[in-house]
Amino acid sequence: MTHTAPGVLEALRAALGDRVDVSDAARHAARADKSGHAADDPPLAVVHARDVADVQTTLRLASETATPVVPQGARTGLAGGANAGAGEIALSVRGMDRLLEVRADDLIAVVEPGILNADLNAALAPHGLWWAPDPASRAISTVGGNIATGAGGLLCAKYGVVRDAVLGLDVVLADGRLLSLGHRTVKGVTGLDLTSLFIGSEGTLGVIVGATLKLRRLTTGDVCTIAATFPTVRAAAGGSAAVTAAGVQPAIMELMDAASLAAVHALLGLPDPTPGAAQLTIQTDGAAARTEAEQIAAILTAAGGSVALSHDREEGERLLAIRRSMHPAMESLGTTLIEDVSVPRSALPAMFDEIARIERDYGMTIPTVAHAGDGNLHPNFIYPGPGEVPAEVWAAADELFRAALRLGGTLTGEHGVGVLKRRWLADELGDDQWRIQHEIARVFDPKGILNPGKVFA
Amino acid sequence: MTHTAPGVLEALRAALGDRVDVSDAARHAARADKSGHAADDPPLAVVHARDVADVQTTLRLASETATPVVPQGARTGLAGGANAGAGEIALSVRGMDRLLEVRADDLIAVVEPGILNADLNAALAPHGLWWAPDPASRAISTVGGNIATGAGGLLCAKYGVVRDAVLGLDVVLADGRLLSLGHRTVKGVTGLDLTSLFIGSEGTLGVIVGATLKLRRLTTGDVCTIAATFPTVRAAAGGSAAVTAAGVQPAIMELMDAASLAAVHALLGLPDPTPGAAQLTIQTDGAAARTEAEQIAAILTAAGGSVALSHDREEGERLLAIRRSMHPAMESLGTTLIEDVSVPRSALPAMFDEIARIERDYGMTIPTVAHAGDGNLHPNFIYPGPGEVPAEVWAAADELFRAALRLGGTLTGEHGVGVLKRRWLADELGDDQWRIQHEIARVFDPKGILNPGKVFA
Repeated sequence: MTHTAPGVLEALRAALGDRVDVSDAARHAARADKSGHAADDPPLAVVHARDVADVQTTLRLASETATPVVPQGARTGLAGGANAGAGEIALSVRGMDRLLEVRADDLIAVVEPGILNADLNAALAPHGLWWAPDPASRAISTVGGNIATGAGGLLCAKYGVVRDAVLGLDVVLADGRLLSLGHRTVKGVTGLDLTSLFIGSEGTLGVIVGATLKLRRLTTGDVCTIAATFPTVRAAAGGSAAVTAAGVQPAIMELMDAASLAAVHALLGLPDPTPGAAQLTIQTDGAAARTEAEQIAAILTAAGGSVALSHDREEGERLLAIRRSMHPAMESLGTTLIEDVSVPRSALPAMFDEIARIERDYGMTIPTVAHAGDGNLHPNFIYPGPGEVPAEVWAAADELFRAALRLGGTLTGEHGVGVLKRRWLADELGDDQWRIQHEIARVFDPKGILNPGKVFA
Repeated sequence: MTHTAPGVLEALRAALGDRVDVSDAARHAARADKSGHAADDPPLAVVHARDVADVQTTLRLASETATPVVPQGARTGLAGGANAGAGEIALSVRGMDRLLEVRADDLIAVVEPGILNADLNAALAPHGLWWAPDPASRAISTVGGNIATGAGGLLCAKYGVVRDAVLGLDVVLADGRLLSLGHRTVKGVTGLDLTSLFIGSEGTLGVIVGATLKLRRLTTGDVCTIAATFPTVRAAAGGSAAVTAAGVQPAIMELMDAASLAAVHALLGLPDPTPGAAQLTIQTDGAAARTEAEQIAAILTAAGGSVALSHDREEGERLLAIRRSMHPAMESLGTTLIEDVSVPRSALPAMFDEIARIERDYGMTIPTVAHAGDGNLHPNFIYPGPGEVPAEVWAAADELFRAALRLGGTLTGEHGVGVLKRRWLADELGDDQWRIQHEIARVFDPKGILNPGKVFA
């Protein structure tokens, strides 16, 4: 049976009943993630899938009617990759949120995609286990979304990125077929690694409906926290590069520049920080936590930092809370375009020089935080909103991207391409690779109904 | 200019001169890797590429003449994936063996594909660095081959597999175009992860001509070695599963069954081992090495093992040398089909039960070693050679594969599919996924000239 496009809603409702939501509230909410960008008009409907069969039915009917589908989770993305617009179906898997299996002996968990990262980790903790990917959004973002965007976080240099923490995926293709990718074993090289191909594919290849995750044992022992203040952001970046170069491996190493510190202090009602000063917040954990913390304190002091070291977990959480308040602090200043470039760790000081240059050239302040342990920077462009990103912000962001690429870096370390960076994608990949990636997407989705206009456009 | 197939040799010689080797010795050697399987007839020629341009020229001419190309490194593979036969060009990158860049501050190295794993690690050691993938063949296998097969090794449970240790690849496509995949940064999610797609692709997508590797700092501190003897192989497997389930993480945990021990002891002129007894050889390293070794010794004693613990590195190497002599010991018994199934770690005892059953049903002895820390088993089928694998060996291997799949495992943990396992590939992937993987390969290689008959056939 073939449906015409206007018939897709009727067909969906006949098959899925009240899981097809055409309320104005749901449709308008489905226009936007947390990128600050929204589709102009709402989608046709939001399908709240309850199980794999619902996802298959939706995609089969969408495929038959050539209706575009935008997979959604908690819509906490920062690149517009899950924004649904006119003529599209928003397919939400947020309600598929069960933890299906935990195997402490095999260090794996099997989950549905809609489970929140923090809820998963709360459920794993009594088993002495955790899933390492820890995006700053972990309290509100889903595991499926973490996988679809290739999310990162604070702990990546020591504990890896999402690609290192997923063994297998169940996915539904554009035509409704279900595939099981990957394996439950530590090792496995049977055929091409389609699991990795789906990680970070941002809904362009299929809909993730299940995941086999690689877990870790909870880290035991001390947690030590170091706060170091430097007179300039360049000095702080030099300090973090010196820590990495010395071969010590912190669990967390976060850098905040002066504008970021000022905004967070204002939000939290803390005393004003020293003008111009930047801060590193570093945590060590595991068996060597104390030794490593002392090494790091010595390195940072030698690099010109003013260093405080704490062995108290609560004091450590208090110090990190300043870093974790960055997003709300930016939101209090205006509409934010959060950027996400990543550079080799040794290039961090040079990248801060480039940001300072762009600030001068454009007469802007660009509050910047960095996961300094892995070279991933989040420069924030603030503008009066709501509305489209102003042209001069894009011009400054364009300079930022090109500077990162010149330094051997990448456009996006952990947020993805979505709609916000699609126009720069070919600059990094080159035209040949861009075309090959697009052709691969067409193998999975010949009609191009999955998340059209995102990533490849 | 288009060449007819008979003209490809002339065109190659005109372009590449003496890098085109048509000697009988080279062509006959190019028929085989170390799988025990060889192509019936030799290839047209062996091209010894000296640089990326040589690889591009070879592939461009091959593409124009629709001549199949088999990428080769040191030909130490164990699945026949690099065997070159009639009408094919063997394209060797073994001579491209330079270490181009080492960055201790960024923990990366850039290499050509032909560098031997052991040579790379010898060059990295003075920098205090290493590349973790450590296949048993590390002294004779290339980094490019390790990547193309997704090689594993002894240290994977603690230090990861190849997929965890490669950040970027330079590859030449079937038509001669050069692509740069991936990045030099810890994080990077710009577009689809084609780097991972090439890892383990066994020469079906393109030729790897360069790699950006993710390095580790050399582990400091003690290395402790535990040797534990158990009355049966099932008891030894239970011991290793108990170690994993207890949450201790050895660097190495190797299991040898009675037939393996007997063969190695005979080869090395050691006293005969206790009949029926199996052995675990375990190493711990890093800051907690001693504590972990003592925990493991207690767990294994409780599991019925007879345990010896050594804190001496040389004694540890001597104990591991028994494990490392497994391949020569098998070669001394006849021609070997080395299998490579992988199961979840908790299923290791059940998998040994299956092997015992197959031994009984087929009246065979199947000496088996296992990377018990990660659930990867190497059962060895010995037969009088040379020549094709006998039908009854394949029948027994077929039972082995199906048992591994039933237990939630995979056909190949680290050796790859090559020619030896291609007939089982669709059993594990399913027909839909098999076809999609094959279509993806066609995106890179529309004419199907790259390693035809391997993996997908």
